[in-house]
Amino acid sequence: MKLGFLGPKGTFSYEAACEYAKDQDLIEYKTIKDIIFAIEKNEIDEGIVPIENSLQGGVTETIDSLIESKEIFIKRSMILKIKQNLIANSNYKFDEIKEIYSHPQALAQCRNYIEENLHHVTINQVSSTALAAKEIKTKNYCACIANEKCVEEYGLCMLEKDIQDNDFNQTKFWILTKKENQQGSKISIIFSTKNKSGALYNVLGEFYKNDINLTKIESRPAKTVLGEYIFLVDLEVNDKIDKAIENLKNECNYIKVLGRY
Amino acid sequence: MKLGFLGPKGTFSYEAACEYAKDQDLIEYKTIKDIIFAIEKNEIDEGIVPIENSLQGGVTETIDSLIESKEIFIKRSMILKIKQNLIANSNYKFDEIKEIYSHPQALAQCRNYIEENLHHVTINQVSSTALAAKEIKTKNYCACIANEKCVEEYGLCMLEKDIQDNDFNQTKFWILTKKENQQGSKISIIFSTKNKSGALYNVLGEFYKNDINLTKIESRPAKTVLGEYIFLVDLEVNDKIDKAIENLKNECNYIKVLGRY
Repeated sequence: MKLGFLGPKGTFSYEAACEYAKDQDLIEYKTIKDIIFAIEKNEIDEGIVPIENSLQGGVTETIDSLIESKEIFIKRSMILKIKQNLIANSNYKFDEIKEIYSHPQALAQCRNYIEENLHHVTINQVSSTALAAKEIKTKNYCACIANEKCVEEYGLCMLEKDIQDNDFNQTKFWILTKKENQQGSKISIIFSTKNKSGALYNVLGEFYKNDINLTKIESRPAKTVLGEYIFLVDLEVNDKIDKAIENLKNECNYIKVLGRY
Repeated sequence: MKLGFLGPKGTFSYEAACEYAKDQDLIEYKTIKDIIFAIEKNEIDEGIVPIENSLQGGVTETIDSLIESKEIFIKRSMILKIKQNLIANSNYKFDEIKEIYSHPQALAQCRNYIEENLHHVTINQVSSTALAAKEIKTKNYCACIANEKCVEEYGLCMLEKDIQDNDFNQTKFWILTKKENQQGSKISIIFSTKNKSGALYNVLGEFYKNDINLTKIESRPAKTVLGEYIFLVDLEVNDKIDKAIENLKNECNYIKVLGRY
């Protein structure tokens, strides 16, 4: 079995892939779109992609790739707590560290920690936490803020674990496959409404009348003109779900069911 | 009068600011959050911010800054057509150009054009189209893909106008101020629903029952735990709008009215 993930090794997607995959080969991809395309072409059996972060919101690249994809379904959903760590190529004390490297979001997530402990350092922004780890491997008296997987992956030292300022930072991942899953308490669907007043209200009404709980709604541009949207909703499955989805066809231009999980 | 915009000069925000501001001083800011903060502190009278793009969707930094802001209102909305251009420091022919610099999104928007006319060049990604223009000012046989304002701003030559692959690329901007606007056919509000089944459906029902057309809904994470959201909606104003918003207070934890425009 082959599982695709968003590389390079040492990203949070890699950590999620390691946690999920027990005996699968991990295959690295450069973009989320490439992962979904690789599933479609049978290059890999499954792909793991980030779908939502508790601070940054929906991952638009994943949602847009799912809108464009043909036969891709959700097999499972998993949540990863985002933990940041201070890592270097040797066991430095705080006052020995001259520079820090990390992704802007990771730096923002540790702002208080840096101010309290490392206010004297020069801060360098790079495009991923894994790249920051690669960067400091050969740089003395420098540290990075990154995933703990980077310690093992790049042969580095953990200076301090869990340095993020708040603990509400979680990312939800979806494991995607080509085969529709028929079992599970959740279901996600993508739809676009007809261009008439109250169309979205009527769609939500279909769920409400059938006691189906809507746990999330995300809107994305239809990529035609401003003002036309495609929606992604997460629903809790009950025995009326198939009927409700069938009824939606009257209110929607198109519906894509991403399966149960 | 002072108008804040997202710099540097030569960005699409700058183009929108020039189009809007007839006799205002343009003040450059580094982030959208800084613009909104500057309005709150009376450093500037108005600020112009991107709120939505027809291909990329809602501008999350703007929405999140408005959620966190205290007394900021919309004065006007305007739409800018996003046009990309091939620009260099001299009037080169296609086969003389060795390298191209631009932002990844602008490069993606001109992919077909590059393949047809410039398939031999090396492509360099930089963090903004305005930066790309700065970069090629001193580089011979290099071109950038950028806003036409860069020609004047950095003393460059226009090689070809309107090179984007499709014409559906538009960005909507909002002009923000500290004073609530009481006039206008549109209104935008931010709210979070109570954590009960059907809460969002009931909110939309309040609009539907009062013949108020909802033209856009955007969800953002509440930044607490996964699964709690804040919504931004655009509505068409009618004579029942004030009553409808008053009724919402029963369904919502909090409501912020961004004013009419």
